[in-house]
Amino acid sequence: MKAGSFLDYKEIRLGIAGLGTVGASLVQLIVQRAAQIEQQLNIRLKIVGLSARDKQRDRGFDLSAFTWFENPMQLAISREIDIFVELIGGAEGVANAVIRAALNNGIHVVTANKALLAHSGVALANLAEAVGREISFEAAVAGGVPVIKTLKESLIAHKVTKIHAILNGTCNYILSRMLEQGVSFAQALQSAQKLGYAESCPNADVQGFDAAHKLAILTALAFKKQSSVQHVSMRGIEDILEQDIRAAEHFGYRLKLLASSIELEDGMLQIVEPTLLPKNSLLAQLGGVTNGLSIFSDLLGELFLAGPGAGGAATAAAVLADILAVAKKQAHNVPAEPLFGVEVKELEPYKAADLQCQLVPGFYIRLCVADETGIFADVSQKMAKNNVSFESIAQNLEALFPGGTEEKNIVIITHETTRQNVEQALKEIAAAGYLRQKYQLYPLAIL
Amino acid sequence: MKAGSFLDYKEIRLGIAGLGTVGASLVQLIVQRAAQIEQQLNIRLKIVGLSARDKQRDRGFDLSAFTWFENPMQLAISREIDIFVELIGGAEGVANAVIRAALNNGIHVVTANKALLAHSGVALANLAEAVGREISFEAAVAGGVPVIKTLKESLIAHKVTKIHAILNGTCNYILSRMLEQGVSFAQALQSAQKLGYAESCPNADVQGFDAAHKLAILTALAFKKQSSVQHVSMRGIEDILEQDIRAAEHFGYRLKLLASSIELEDGMLQIVEPTLLPKNSLLAQLGGVTNGLSIFSDLLGELFLAGPGAGGAATAAAVLADILAVAKKQAHNVPAEPLFGVEVKELEPYKAADLQCQLVPGFYIRLCVADETGIFADVSQKMAKNNVSFESIAQNLEALFPGGTEEKNIVIITHETTRQNVEQALKEIAAAGYLRQKYQLYPLAIL
Repeated sequence: MKAGSFLDYKEIRLGIAGLGTVGASLVQLIVQRAAQIEQQLNIRLKIVGLSARDKQRDRGFDLSAFTWFENPMQLAISREIDIFVELIGGAEGVANAVIRAALNNGIHVVTANKALLAHSGVALANLAEAVGREISFEAAVAGGVPVIKTLKESLIAHKVTKIHAILNGTCNYILSRMLEQGVSFAQALQSAQKLGYAESCPNADVQGFDAAHKLAILTALAFKKQSSVQHVSMRGIEDILEQDIRAAEHFGYRLKLLASSIELEDGMLQIVEPTLLPKNSLLAQLGGVTNGLSIFSDLLGELFLAGPGAGGAATAAAVLADILAVAKKQAHNVPAEPLFGVEVKELEPYKAADLQCQLVPGFYIRLCVADETGIFADVSQKMAKNNVSFESIAQNLEALFPGGTEEKNIVIITHETTRQNVEQALKEIAAAGYLRQKYQLYPLAIL
Repeated sequence: MKAGSFLDYKEIRLGIAGLGTVGASLVQLIVQRAAQIEQQLNIRLKIVGLSARDKQRDRGFDLSAFTWFENPMQLAISREIDIFVELIGGAEGVANAVIRAALNNGIHVVTANKALLAHSGVALANLAEAVGREISFEAAVAGGVPVIKTLKESLIAHKVTKIHAILNGTCNYILSRMLEQGVSFAQALQSAQKLGYAESCPNADVQGFDAAHKLAILTALAFKKQSSVQHVSMRGIEDILEQDIRAAEHFGYRLKLLASSIELEDGMLQIVEPTLLPKNSLLAQLGGVTNGLSIFSDLLGELFLAGPGAGGAATAAAVLADILAVAKKQAHNVPAEPLFGVEVKELEPYKAADLQCQLVPGFYIRLCVADETGIFADVSQKMAKNNVSFESIAQNLEALFPGGTEEKNIVIITHETTRQNVEQALKEIAAAGYLRQKYQLYPLAIL
């Protein structure tokens, strides 16, 4: 390092494309903190241009102070900017095109675009390496929680073995509300929409796509694999009944949309699905729109991070931290760091483990059966035949499952077994004809 | 930034002084990961020299592969090293001298020395700035939890308003064990010593000094104040009875050694003391030797980090992350960053708020009184006179406090009030002569 002062004075010129909640918060944040940042860090952040689909929309601040670009591509390749901030979103189309154009024109990119990185992270990393420019994306995963920096810098020399995470605030809000208020999925979704926590079309959140995108990015970074979103097994929360949430609590578990990435001897598992966590685990405590992650590594054991997973200010704060990090490097002519912390050639090819054959610590199963003698014996026999044994059973949850007089609900927590075994047993049980509803099945987390 | 490859190949020469648990783990970690680090990051870590008080001690690896320095000062000023790693410890004496010598000789410093930084952080930051060298200290606070990096980089543009933290693993282990096993402080301490979680002289841990050191460092960094350890009010855990831990649980609270730093209108509060946390808070969930922090800021709300706060591998991993970060900057001739993220001139002078007059959400009070009529009325009257009112009262905790037949225990959770009010009321109650033991008093956390 050079002796002398910490940072030479530097002006960093920004182009910001996409002025939704995050983009608008970012502009206001930069305006509000510019003097403090200049005073403390010797970095002058200058917004050179803005671009968004609709110039007319009221964003709570005066656009006339900034140069407007009708076409984000023009902004991305402007010779007047040092960093292009992409907040347009989406895996394909304009976001991908403008990021590539910016890189090809020697401009660094800061983005919050999880869908794009989950689909094309490796391709973008290759391009960024080829042109020696940086793509930063702290805001793409878990909003304001500094998980990208932690994996890329603090855990760089660790061997990460497992990640369990709550990565979708909307789903976590819905499940928390179903538990606390005893309401249905549909009712909880409606509250989430009223509060602005869910889109009017909530599929990307409630079907698990959003969490799967984020998980694929984390997996590439943490396990140094060429992971993309198609490697993630996925199941959403739409079919969850609040009664099952409460029955799980009865057994000491909390149902969460868990995103898990685990390295096994025969390959990787990446799963997003409703999963039972022990009630006293840290992840189980996260209510509302909070995101959180347990990262297990050889040197640290469990490291846990949690915080606001969404929201304009929190996400904009993560974008700003990225901008300042790139600005510091830019000021000192430091070569760009690779997107995944190591160069693409260091990423191992992705190899999937066989999900069906992996041991799971147990399953929650609810069977709504005809209230006739002999059925429980038949269920037990079919389970046993498929190597599924019972850890605990409750037949006395009438308060939760009033149902008709001619049916009853059996709720089971199994011992350790495989998905294959459980699914085969349930197939045989379904074929026996005494199920009055489709069975409910959720795994316990692999802790 | 320069175009082209991410990191030019660089050899970084290390001198490591202090080979206790952390130092020995670090040497083994570097040996074990050197090839991977060289392959992935283009950084070759070379241990040039080692120094420790006792060369003969068995540390589980072969010292003969390394050059030995009898005098750590010789190592600190060697022209052969780029980074001096100080793991000797202690606020005064040799650690301070060798760090200063290294800096004055143009050598960067990585340290885990919380006591030194808590006493002399500002002075060392001044020296480091003057000579343009870096002091990194991730391992000094919360072991493997990357809290220094998070505050220095991710939250650099935030206004931190409050930190609540569990920073001493020994105390957290002891309190967890007292709760779970129903044993006394002395018995829990003995287990901690057996497991290597507590020193044979445990004062620095159980009296709160260790947590106070760490808190003072966090305060300087997070609030940008000239904070040092003498600004921290401190009370240890030695006098805690397991009955009070269990009585607190009865009211829905968990007793933890909490380290809190809060910015108020009239100044800062820094307190390390046994404190009641709501049982369902994340910090309350941390058992054993885990450390954790809730950092509240204007942009993020609550950010929570937790992980192993001690242990050779976890702490050595934090030291290694610091070494790699300095190495990357060294490789590209980047000027040193200031110790507290901003230059010393940007740190505000420390101003203490008046602890006695601040409102606290409530207090846990246990009074062991003579079993006579009229006493409870007198207690209530003296409390009321001093503006202390009751949130809840339990007189029926006989199972916890069997005591004599002629005494009974009254446990009270008060409404919001000040320390001054509570202490005045308790003074008057003590003067009334009916207390059979010294009263017990713990605050609720300021959430």
